[in-house]
Amino acid sequence: MIHISPVDRSLSAALQEKIDQKTKPPGSLGRLEEIALQAGLIQQTLKPVITKPTIAIFAGDHGIAEKGLVNPYPQAVTAQMVYNFLRGGAAINVLCKQLQIELIIVDAGVNHDFPSHAMLNDRKIAYGTHNYLHEPAMSHDQCRKAMEAGAEIVQYIQQQGCNTIGFGEMGIGNTASASLLMSCFTGLPIAECTGAGTGSTHQQILQKTVLLQEALNRHGIPTDAETVLATFGGFEIAMLCGAILQAAALGMMVVIDGFIVTAALMAAQRMQPAVTDYCIFSHCSHEKGHRLMLEHLQVNALLQLDMRLGEGTGAAMAMPVIQCAAAFMEHMASFADAQVSNRTS
Amino acid sequence: MIHISPVDRSLSAALQEKIDQKTKPPGSLGRLEEIALQAGLIQQTLKPVITKPTIAIFAGDHGIAEKGLVNPYPQAVTAQMVYNFLRGGAAINVLCKQLQIELIIVDAGVNHDFPSHAMLNDRKIAYGTHNYLHEPAMSHDQCRKAMEAGAEIVQYIQQQGCNTIGFGEMGIGNTASASLLMSCFTGLPIAECTGAGTGSTHQQILQKTVLLQEALNRHGIPTDAETVLATFGGFEIAMLCGAILQAAALGMMVVIDGFIVTAALMAAQRMQPAVTDYCIFSHCSHEKGHRLMLEHLQVNALLQLDMRLGEGTGAAMAMPVIQCAAAFMEHMASFADAQVSNRTS
Repeated sequence: MIHISPVDRSLSAALQEKIDQKTKPPGSLGRLEEIALQAGLIQQTLKPVITKPTIAIFAGDHGIAEKGLVNPYPQAVTAQMVYNFLRGGAAINVLCKQLQIELIIVDAGVNHDFPSHAMLNDRKIAYGTHNYLHEPAMSHDQCRKAMEAGAEIVQYIQQQGCNTIGFGEMGIGNTASASLLMSCFTGLPIAECTGAGTGSTHQQILQKTVLLQEALNRHGIPTDAETVLATFGGFEIAMLCGAILQAAALGMMVVIDGFIVTAALMAAQRMQPAVTDYCIFSHCSHEKGHRLMLEHLQVNALLQLDMRLGEGTGAAMAMPVIQCAAAFMEHMASFADAQVSNRTS
Repeated sequence: MIHISPVDRSLSAALQEKIDQKTKPPGSLGRLEEIALQAGLIQQTLKPVITKPTIAIFAGDHGIAEKGLVNPYPQAVTAQMVYNFLRGGAAINVLCKQLQIELIIVDAGVNHDFPSHAMLNDRKIAYGTHNYLHEPAMSHDQCRKAMEAGAEIVQYIQQQGCNTIGFGEMGIGNTASASLLMSCFTGLPIAECTGAGTGSTHQQILQKTVLLQEALNRHGIPTDAETVLATFGGFEIAMLCGAILQAAALGMMVVIDGFIVTAALMAAQRMQPAVTDYCIFSHCSHEKGHRLMLEHLQVNALLQLDMRLGEGTGAAMAMPVIQCAAAFMEHMASFADAQVSNRTS
């Protein structure tokens, strides 16, 4: 089992002093200063750097989505969107290209056989999860396999020179899964955890809420995080959980995307509470439950662009902010360097 | 006098249709979709592009700042920071380098003679404004000269191939000037318009408020925008006003920074109300009055990073968001292109 230590905060004062000696009023770079401090603590240096920023998207299918019970788009869209990623046509492709971010796609359990492709990592656990209305989404064995696969992918990405990794997902029906995880981990009623996902109508959200309550009634609320993941999760969510834990264990900066990735993080945090020390919360999604999740975790998102797309698009948008935070630490002049007078009163 | 037409909205429906046919749930790219639409309308095309994004910083000194009455940093810091810009050591230099943004510095009226430098545009109106506690900050003639200089600089930048321009400023004491403009243009009491600037203490803010109320009592509230600018403005603020108007008149995307640049925009908007059609409000500054200014203008800022540095740093941080908005319009696949199923219910 991976163990994650809280970040060593002994450099805090030296980092803050360096930040305050830059030629600007103290605190005037706001969130960039917070990130610079966090990056310095994670990397244990006064000179944090961001190398080879990468986004890994995990894709998987969900038993519950087969009959369109919780999803306005058909299940086939998961595979279609994976092809779209591989051809470079999805939002995340465009953002990664524009922002010079590496992109890796992982088949965690899509209900489709893909031909091999340089960009696609085949880690398929099965052709979609079981429907949690009838049985647990996956076995404990599958859940552990998925978490291990996520960890291995992160090890590989880190070996390529990446120290800052964002996570994304694709899986028709996976907001339902994330709502269940959220309800289990926060104790909030399922109605507060259930939103429009890719665009459910008010009526569809009510139907989704009723079904998810049925699932909770059927299985109860498991007491350990791995059982929550196995019962209500998706393969992409379990893989994300393992990937997040591994990234933190390796001392990487972990860029959390929206509702579904944050659900995976909540599972990870139950297993290893220190994992959030390594996380940057890229944005607050427009998906209803995400703000409550962030409040529960007592964290502040960096951006609020009213996005609710998944795919790691929020994480991508945060990358330039993170890079600018490291850049000002490295390249800005200090008052002494620049012979600029500091405050007089 | 420059005339600015409201953007022609006849392409709105076609732009929205193009946005909605991209492979994503409708609206799921949030603010990026709004910017893509706005860019299409400004550029009158279904294929908006961002070319040679540039930030122009206008620097000027303020009579009120000579004796440190409203400013915790000495007036000499304006010139020192201009040197810091020219050497590449300031925050805006680092952000522009990281984000691949062109940067131009303009001496609008700094109390110092600079040697010539490739990056510095000498448009000095005078060695700082007069102290508005005793007399108007500048003459109408100076104010008009400053506005014309701002317009000429924007014409030059546009001729270099830039269609998206962000504005920044440097001027010890210029938050006081912006507070006065804000009070004149919004009708709000000066106490609601006065904040910490570069970092005044509570006591210093109270003293600043008393002095600014004295200035308002002395001159009254002028009824026309140009007299407001001339009475309470700075050379950099008047130049910004002219620059903003010219950029909008040329159909450029105008990226507004924080409190001081927004004060210049408020003057511009009084002269030509359609100017805001061309503006993107990059961020909501941590400076107290900025949120109220944005509310008064009925606009939403893109980012909220708790920054309050000026120099155009907020505008710089918004550039990647704007670029990503144009990029998704150009490069994302449509449902038809990608053979992805659209929603079924």
